Amino acid sequence: MKLCRYDDDRVGLVEGDSLTDVTSALDSLPDMRWPVPAGDALIAHLDEFLAAADEAAATVRKRLADVELLSPIANPTKIIGAPVNYAKHLAESRADAGIHHNRDIKTIDHYGLFLKAGTSLVGASDGIALRFPERRNDHEVELVAVIGSTADRVSAANAMAHVAGYTIGLDMTVRGTEDRSFRKSIDSYSVIGPWLVTTDEIPDPMNLDLTLTVNGDIRQQSNTRHLIFDVPRLIEYASSFYTLYPGDLIMTGTPDGVGPVAHGDRLVASIEGIGSMTVDVRNA
Amino acid sequence: MKLCRYDDDRVGLVEGDSLTDVTSALDSLPDMRWPVPAGDALIAHLDEFLAAADEAAATVRKRLADVELLSPIANPTKIIGAPVNYAKHLAESRADAGIHHNRDIKTIDHYGLFLKAGTSLVGASDGIALRFPERRNDHEVELVAVIGSTADRVSAANAMAHVAGYTIGLDMTVRGTEDRSFRKSIDSYSVIGPWLVTTDEIPDPMNLDLTLTVNGDIRQQSNTRHLIFDVPRLIEYASSFYTLYPGDLIMTGTPDGVGPVAHGDRLVASIEGIGSMTVDVRNA
Repeated sequence: MKLCRYDDDRVGLVEGDSLTDVTSALDSLPDMRWPVPAGDALIAHLDEFLAAADEAAATVRKRLADVELLSPIANPTKIIGAPVNYAKHLAESRADAGIHHNRDIKTIDHYGLFLKAGTSLVGASDGIALRFPERRNDHEVELVAVIGSTADRVSAANAMAHVAGYTIGLDMTVRGTEDRSFRKSIDSYSVIGPWLVTTDEIPDPMNLDLTLTVNGDIRQQSNTRHLIFDVPRLIEYASSFYTLYPGDLIMTGTPDGVGPVAHGDRLVASIEGIGSMTVDVRNA
Repeated sequence: MKLCRYDDDRVGLVEGDSLTDVTSALDSLPDMRWPVPAGDALIAHLDEFLAAADEAAATVRKRLADVELLSPIANPTKIIGAPVNYAKHLAESRADAGIHHNRDIKTIDHYGLFLKAGTSLVGASDGIALRFPERRNDHEVELVAVIGSTADRVSAANAMAHVAGYTIGLDMTVRGTEDRSFRKSIDSYSVIGPWLVTTDEIPDPMNLDLTLTVNGDIRQQSNTRHLIFDVPRLIEYASSFYTLYPGDLIMTGTPDGVGPVAHGDRLVASIEGIGSMTVDVRNA
């Protein structure tokens, strides 16, 4: 199942180059009052939502080319990043002063994970707005695991039962000396999409080709089998520190080939089994 | 006005050692559906809430000693931290290998700000649960500024209009090599309370004594006039990277005197004009 959010918070099931609108199934979700419970309500109630969508007389179809794709996850309690989680990216980070800024680059178990602000989250149609175009702003394409159920101190062996699905992420980064959680949290610096693909369609998330092009040129090209910490290990590691909730996003790290973007650039991020998303860059 | 959240998400106005229950005024807040808009709904609608509280025939009074105090802010989109923002804490961090872990400690404008997970947020009655008692877990008492209205790229001169009020924070930290946003985001490592004090009661937030005791011994004692980046500058700096929303928390940094806590310790954090909160430490 491929689930997208589009236009003014409508929801669609994607097939091929079109979608079927299932927005009415949102009525199956509980109304919320302050304080809002932890977790994205749609992901927390995904089974009920999909059952309601199945029963709805869904007749409105739209071409994907005619809609504005938003982040498929609206309310993650956490956007979690995995630093230097591909060996070749580790090597390029150590070699490039524009990345390492005179820091000794170590490995993920030394660094732990990092956070990106929930308010940095956008979808493909929103694009990326550069607040500091005079600084180096890099693209980082990543497989994103979407947590499906609450996970506290789970083992790698049990981790995959807590995954709802996968999506593509761009972990945009302004280079510099500041804390990673600051440099990667600029508004629009977490692009997610084009839709959520449920786990039944991704039998082996640890063997997916991923690619990023900038203005048609391939800049990043790898496969998730090269991850240092794979998805189960990332969930084990993250949940040893904090509880994961439905809708939490684990951006699994970027392969080598990161590089700067500028106003007017067009990025296309693709992951096997998920699809492609096109994201435009502009100055804020 | 001192506003607390207590017991099963009830709301009270605090006077002296008791509160008046104004939970019924929550009916003035809008119901929410997925996707939930950015910002804490109570803080976003604080004026309407307080007007409704004023009109309600509030008759239930309780002694503060008889209630469980929760975090007064329930749904911040961001918990923002300010690293090494007191000169004396900078000095002690540089002198203590248990803090610096062989890193050269620089200043806040070098580090930028950092994020703590929203899921680490608790109130005084929840206490602190140590997941890694074999590692060093430090207390850090801080003045917390609570954002009252959306703030995007505001100047220091205009920043204070975006503050709803203040509260006390404990920015709990496990020491180590991992990313700050990981080490400070363990469940229960952001303790906020005992209540929100609105700005009208804090005429000069930059001149408040703050103190932390552990089992009755004074460990941290300073005044917010020693902040390197004061509250307006922190808001200017934060909002230059990302939009601030109602209920966002800016933990302004800790003075010198940080040190380890252990199972069974009792912390009392106090800030002039706000009050005191008592927080117990246990092993998870």
